[in-house]
Amino acid sequence: MQRATTALLTADLKIAEEIISEDDAIDAMQHDIEARAINLMARQQPVAGDLRTLVTSLRMSADLERMGDLAHHVAKLTRMRYPSAAVPVELTATIQSMGDVAGKIIDKATHVIKTQDLKAAVELETDDDEMDRLHRQLFTILLDDSWSYGIETAIDLTLLGRYYERYADHAVSVSRRVYFLVTGKYA
Amino acid sequence: MQRATTALLTADLKIAEEIISEDDAIDAMQHDIEARAINLMARQQPVAGDLRTLVTSLRMSADLERMGDLAHHVAKLTRMRYPSAAVPVELTATIQSMGDVAGKIIDKATHVIKTQDLKAAVELETDDDEMDRLHRQLFTILLDDSWSYGIETAIDLTLLGRYYERYADHAVSVSRRVYFLVTGKYA
Repeated sequence: MQRATTALLTADLKIAEEIISEDDAIDAMQHDIEARAINLMARQQPVAGDLRTLVTSLRMSADLERMGDLAHHVAKLTRMRYPSAAVPVELTATIQSMGDVAGKIIDKATHVIKTQDLKAAVELETDDDEMDRLHRQLFTILLDDSWSYGIETAIDLTLLGRYYERYADHAVSVSRRVYFLVTGKYA
Repeated sequence: MQRATTALLTADLKIAEEIISEDDAIDAMQHDIEARAINLMARQQPVAGDLRTLVTSLRMSADLERMGDLAHHVAKLTRMRYPSAAVPVELTATIQSMGDVAGKIIDKATHVIKTQDLKAAVELETDDDEMDRLHRQLFTILLDDSWSYGIETAIDLTLLGRYYERYADHAVSVSRRVYFLVTGKYA
């Protein structure tokens, strides 16, 4: 999503195309994880903690696959508007911030998956609040009387805002699944 | 989603509030399905087909839970704009059609879950094409020079269009999972 943001804000078709083609690799990884998880369940007959871990992996892989889709959507919009930039200058800073928060969130979610760091899992909720704040800021700018880019750009930005917001939601979901796996409680 | 569409198009706050509160029940059902699936896996140690069925149930429940969220989003937008109607008259027919297709799709997906009817599973792809066509029609109307409702309504309709489109996508996803479960192949 960080690279998709760079592609979006600089109208970089090359990066956009790379992201679009990489999405297939993420989909393939998810199918592979699913097959391996089912295989492990069938052969090892895991119980209790191990079984919950495998089920959680399935759930998390679905979230992560969806996050790939959302970066892919950002890249596709970049390509659709190329050689124009899809984001007008008034909104560049807000979208850059949403991209930065998305990057921070996926880095932290990856750390939570690797280390089961519950403190970081809880912090992710605050990062998501920051994304929500930026999302509201985006709408404030779109709805300001000085908005001069018309309906098409407003539609593009509404969809972009939604992609970033959902991206953060899925990262929070991943982190909550780890929290639940470790503690047996919802954060 | 059919009831959410009625609430949306008639600015019916009572129905909207019902849908908003029912979403908790869907979330609770999903947690229950997850707990029961894990319990069955742990106690019965299912293999092969039974195991795949349980994993598919987990996946489908996530799609169905998300469909509840999307109907909930439509109802919340209805409530936010009340007592005004969120949808201008020029778009009533399109949104009504999207609601009708959503209704047809969830009925068919439910039938596919119950009966594993592969013919219906394949038909769902065509129903989804109809939703995509309506979604494009929505944008055509928003982008027409005669559009006179301004940016806020365009944002509302962009989000609504996305909710209906994603609703159909999740129903297709449910149906594809059944197809894969029965045939071992992707449709």
